[in-house]
Amino acid sequence: MEKEKVVIGIDIGGTNTVFGVVDRSGRILAEDSITTSHYDEPEVFVAALYEKIMITIPKIGREVVVLGFGIGAPMGNINKGTIEYPADLPWKGIIPLAEIFSRHTDLPVIVTNDANAAAVGEIIYGGAKGMKNFVVITLGTGLGSGFVVDGKLVYGQDGFAGEIGHTSIRPGMSNRDCGCGRKGCLETYVSATGLKRTVLKILADRLEDSELRRYSFDELDAKKIYEAARRGDILALEAFEHTGAMLGYKLADVVAHTNPEAIFLFGGLALAKELIFEPAQKHMEQNLLYIYRDKVKLLPSELSTHNAAVLGASSLIWSENGE
Amino acid sequence: MEKEKVVIGIDIGGTNTVFGVVDRSGRILAEDSITTSHYDEPEVFVAALYEKIMITIPKIGREVVVLGFGIGAPMGNINKGTIEYPADLPWKGIIPLAEIFSRHTDLPVIVTNDANAAAVGEIIYGGAKGMKNFVVITLGTGLGSGFVVDGKLVYGQDGFAGEIGHTSIRPGMSNRDCGCGRKGCLETYVSATGLKRTVLKILADRLEDSELRRYSFDELDAKKIYEAARRGDILALEAFEHTGAMLGYKLADVVAHTNPEAIFLFGGLALAKELIFEPAQKHMEQNLLYIYRDKVKLLPSELSTHNAAVLGASSLIWSENGE
Repeated sequence: MEKEKVVIGIDIGGTNTVFGVVDRSGRILAEDSITTSHYDEPEVFVAALYEKIMITIPKIGREVVVLGFGIGAPMGNINKGTIEYPADLPWKGIIPLAEIFSRHTDLPVIVTNDANAAAVGEIIYGGAKGMKNFVVITLGTGLGSGFVVDGKLVYGQDGFAGEIGHTSIRPGMSNRDCGCGRKGCLETYVSATGLKRTVLKILADRLEDSELRRYSFDELDAKKIYEAARRGDILALEAFEHTGAMLGYKLADVVAHTNPEAIFLFGGLALAKELIFEPAQKHMEQNLLYIYRDKVKLLPSELSTHNAAVLGASSLIWSENGE
Repeated sequence: MEKEKVVIGIDIGGTNTVFGVVDRSGRILAEDSITTSHYDEPEVFVAALYEKIMITIPKIGREVVVLGFGIGAPMGNINKGTIEYPADLPWKGIIPLAEIFSRHTDLPVIVTNDANAAAVGEIIYGGAKGMKNFVVITLGTGLGSGFVVDGKLVYGQDGFAGEIGHTSIRPGMSNRDCGCGRKGCLETYVSATGLKRTVLKILADRLEDSELRRYSFDELDAKKIYEAARRGDILALEAFEHTGAMLGYKLADVVAHTNPEAIFLFGGLALAKELIFEPAQKHMEQNLLYIYRDKVKLLPSELSTHNAAVLGASSLIWSENGE
């Protein structure tokens, strides 16, 4: 009998690096993690990660053939296999991650950013099967995006396409600082952190009572805001409405640029369902040229939420293999 | 000796439809036009156009082989070969232009919008030879755009990618009506008409003297504003600065979406050279995420200005033939 083919998906985050052994259907057969922040040197990090993966594979309990390693990382550059100036990782400058990893294996190693990985994951395992033109927006601490045009991921000239989190909502008119050094980037409004900042702004502007008034900025998080909104807290609801509106504005730009069939929302904030989808859809439609109206589907990602980033990263290898 | 291959490029405008017989190097060997607005029925228009083309080809004075017909038209849909709800043409609804045209010929007929045609023209005859990722912005009465990703024109799901003229500069914050029914679209600022509207706004806001104060809205045009700016008219210069800034803001979004190698500016306003390029470049760079900075070339189109739209339309056929 032919041995089962699997791929390794790796999600490098600022705190932890999670990986999984994934089969073609998107089932994670085994998984584990290492602590990213323990490693000052990327070479030592990769050696420890590779060793942990090699220990983990046998835990599946049957023989498998590994086809390759897909790695999702902040500022991952798919053209060059590098991570470039990641703000949230312990390493500085340009890290030739695929090259370092390849010192341990002859199998394919593909590096990309989380949002591109999520887009490919949506084709391989999720709701974009058979779709040729779509966009995935990842909503986490920040906001990422991956564009698929004519069935292929858009890399761009330098491998950095899809950074819509760093487009401006209203250029020159926002005071909200972004981690990238500019002001008013989309992700300062539309992300878990953006939602929290918007709550503070609303609490400052308005007089209504709100259960959110009892939390400090440090205590507040998207989950508390979500729960308050579910209980009908007017200001929490307003924060979601505003966040969805900002997202909708920029989704209209996405549509005007590449005319996709669908836009998938992926990650934490997307789990707030209609609290984010309804205002996003409404404001997107209002900002669309008539030729696009009522055509673009705004959908939740179908990647399983548990370890979706690992799934996305792993999908790069299936995609590369044309499977 | 093998006969010379040529293609027919057709530019359908609201007033005139211009066409040319074009060789592989982009030389127009013969050209003529018919009056679009004389024809209430697209079938009669196409019959008259086809006849005029057939009369024009022999005027080259030597035998040629026609490979096909490339047609640029407002709201031209390359997927379907249609023109859909064009605002500026005498016909209503969805016009199956390629199908009507094909009643006269068995040769390939390709329909697209002017900006997509300009993008392909830039690859075939212009400055984008060999480029894989670039964008063309057409600046005329309105603003169009054509995206090329990985060497291929981006059509999108419905054939309508690249309508950045109808993205908002500052959603919900502009009172400037757009012909599309919304407010504050990019083309209400960045186009020949947009420049003129900005002049009026500046004349209303400011107290400085300006030679433009002597013109009515109807008398004013981009040429007069350009000439005033060249003579050092402060308010005319300010209008160009503002127009370039608005363009730069949205070019930053273009870069964040598809990470192109270059952006070409094409059409009337682009001829104002540094008056438009300098503020556009400056504000684009200021609004770029650091990974993109100082990498994207902002270039004038290299398509010859005379009948550039005809050249662009004709290039579709060479592109289709893989030449």
